[in-house]
Amino acid sequence: MKKRVVLAFGGNALQKNGEVTAEAQKEIAREVGKAIYELSSEYEIVVVHGNGPQVGNILIHEEGAASDKAPAMPLETAVAMSQGQIGYWLTQAINNAFIAHGRQAKVATVVSQVVVSKSDPAFDNPTKPIGQFYSEKEAKALAREKGWTVKEDAGRGWRRVVASPRPIDIIEKKTIIELIRDGVIVIAAGGGGIPVYRTKVLRRIKGVDAVIDKDFAGEKLAELVKADVFVSVTAVANAYVKFGTPEQKPLEKVTVSEIAEYLPEFKAGSMLPKVQAAMAFAEKGKIGIITNIENLEEALELKAGTIITK
Amino acid sequence: MKKRVVLAFGGNALQKNGEVTAEAQKEIAREVGKAIYELSSEYEIVVVHGNGPQVGNILIHEEGAASDKAPAMPLETAVAMSQGQIGYWLTQAINNAFIAHGRQAKVATVVSQVVVSKSDPAFDNPTKPIGQFYSEKEAKALAREKGWTVKEDAGRGWRRVVASPRPIDIIEKKTIIELIRDGVIVIAAGGGGIPVYRTKVLRRIKGVDAVIDKDFAGEKLAELVKADVFVSVTAVANAYVKFGTPEQKPLEKVTVSEIAEYLPEFKAGSMLPKVQAAMAFAEKGKIGIITNIENLEEALELKAGTIITK
Repeated sequence: MKKRVVLAFGGNALQKNGEVTAEAQKEIAREVGKAIYELSSEYEIVVVHGNGPQVGNILIHEEGAASDKAPAMPLETAVAMSQGQIGYWLTQAINNAFIAHGRQAKVATVVSQVVVSKSDPAFDNPTKPIGQFYSEKEAKALAREKGWTVKEDAGRGWRRVVASPRPIDIIEKKTIIELIRDGVIVIAAGGGGIPVYRTKVLRRIKGVDAVIDKDFAGEKLAELVKADVFVSVTAVANAYVKFGTPEQKPLEKVTVSEIAEYLPEFKAGSMLPKVQAAMAFAEKGKIGIITNIENLEEALELKAGTIITK
Repeated sequence: MKKRVVLAFGGNALQKNGEVTAEAQKEIAREVGKAIYELSSEYEIVVVHGNGPQVGNILIHEEGAASDKAPAMPLETAVAMSQGQIGYWLTQAINNAFIAHGRQAKVATVVSQVVVSKSDPAFDNPTKPIGQFYSEKEAKALAREKGWTVKEDAGRGWRRVVASPRPIDIIEKKTIIELIRDGVIVIAAGGGGIPVYRTKVLRRIKGVDAVIDKDFAGEKLAELVKADVFVSVTAVANAYVKFGTPEQKPLEKVTVSEIAEYLPEFKAGSMLPKVQAAMAFAEKGKIGIITNIENLEEALELKAGTIITK
C-alpha cells in the first residue's frame, strides 16, 4: 500500500530570483510537477501551496485599478482566485510530467475553504502585512472607510495588516479523501485555504479577511486525511541551529522534545511555522519533515532533511 | 438511480442589476445554492458557470495596475482565477443551503482545463472583445507589444479581441466522473474552462489566450460524464421565436429538426449558443433544455422550459 504524504510548498518556492510573471512561475511549477511525478509511484500525494507573493499581487491589482464598475474583490475572494491561479499552474505541470513519460495523470485542484475561529486571538492583533504600500494619510483613510487595520511597515510605508488565525477544519476534507482513494493527486488548501468561520446561531460558513499559514493548514489537512507524513518543502535542505552563523548545524533526525529546545532559534513567519507544523504532526505519532525539493525523495525515505518523530 | 444533469449558468446570471461587488454576486450565488439543494435529492449535479463579467474585471485590474514588480497575468491564467473566485462563491452557497437544512453538502470546485485545437478557425478571426477599452493609439501599441488583435467596439473605443474556439476535451473529466460517483456535486469547466491545446510533437498541454463558450463547454462535459440532461440556465423561461416582438412565442417541446428552422432567429453570443449546445446534446439521443432558475425543477420534469429531443 502506498504511503500517504502531504507536501506543503512555499509561495516563494514558486518563484526564482523574485520573478513573478506567469511564465517564470510556470517554469518553477514544472520542476514541482516533475518531482511529484517521480514520487507518485510510491506515494499518495496531496499538495498544499503558499500564495504570499501571488495573493499580494492580486490585491495590488484589484485595489490599484478598482472602480465602481469594477470593484476590488475582498481578501478572502482573492485567496480563492490565487487557488485557481496556482492550482492551474501546478495541475498543468503535473499533467505534463506524466505526458512526458507517455502516461496520463489523475490530478485535480480543489478550491478549499479552511475554518478558523472568530475568537482566535489573532483577530485581536492582526500582524500580517498584505497588499500595496500607502502613505500614512491614505492608509488611515482606508482604515476608516473599510474597517482595515493598518500599520507602518519597517520604514517602507503603511500597509494593511490582517489576522493569521489557526486552521480548525477543512470544509472539503471528505471530497479530498474520496479523491485520494480514487488515486487522484490532489492540490488543496492552497494559500492556507480560503478563511471561513461558522456563524454563531445558524452555523453557516462565511468568508473572513485573514490569511492562514500554509504549513499549519497543510498539517491540519495531513491530520484530516490521515496522512503518514507531512513535509514542509522549503528553500533549504534542513532546519538549522545557529542558522547563518559559522557554527550553523543542520538538524537531521530529531524527536519533538529535542527540537522543542531550539524553537527560540527559528525565525517567526519563516522557519518557525514550518518546524511547529512538522512538530505538531510528529506529536500524533506520525512523521514531520522539513526539506527542499532536491532532497524530497531521500527525505521521504528518511535519509535526508530534518525528520521529526515523537 | 438518480438522473445525471449538467447545469450551465450564465456569468451574467450571477449578477443582479449589473452589481459586481463580491457581496452582490454572493447573494445571487445563494439563490443558485438553494436551487441546487432542492434538486440534489433527485439528481446528480454538475454545475458549469460563465465568467464573462468576472474575467473582464480581473483583466481590467490585472492590466490597469500592472508593473514590473506585479505584472499582469495572461487571459488563460485569469480564467483560472475566475474559476477559483466564482467556484468559491458557489461552493459556499451550496454548503450553506445544506447547512440550512441541518445537512452537510458534498460539493467541490475542480479547476478545469478544456482542450481546444490550434487549427480551430476561430483563431484566424478573433471576435470576442475582452478587458478594458483603449484609445486607438494605445490599442495599436498594445497589439504591437503583446501580439494582441484589437478592434474598434461599437463606437465605445478599442478593445482586445480573442478567439472563441470549440471545446474538444476536458483534461479533468475522469476526476469529475469519480467525484460524481462519490456523490459529490461538482462545479467544473467554469467560464467554459481554461483554454489549453496539445503541442504537436510532444502532445503536452499549454494554455492559450482564448475564451470558450460556457454552453459549448457544458455540453461537452455533459457528453463526457454521460449525463442524461444538459440545461442552459439563463434569464428567460424559454427560447422564443420572434423574441421581443408582439408575436413572440415560447418554444416548448421541440425536436432538433424543428428548432433548427428557427436558428437564424437566435442572437449570436446570446441565445444562439445555448440553443446550439442544447441541440447538440439532444442530437445524441439525450435531452437539451433552455430555461431559467425559477423553472428549473419543472423543466427537469419536462413540464417547463424549452425541451429539445432528437
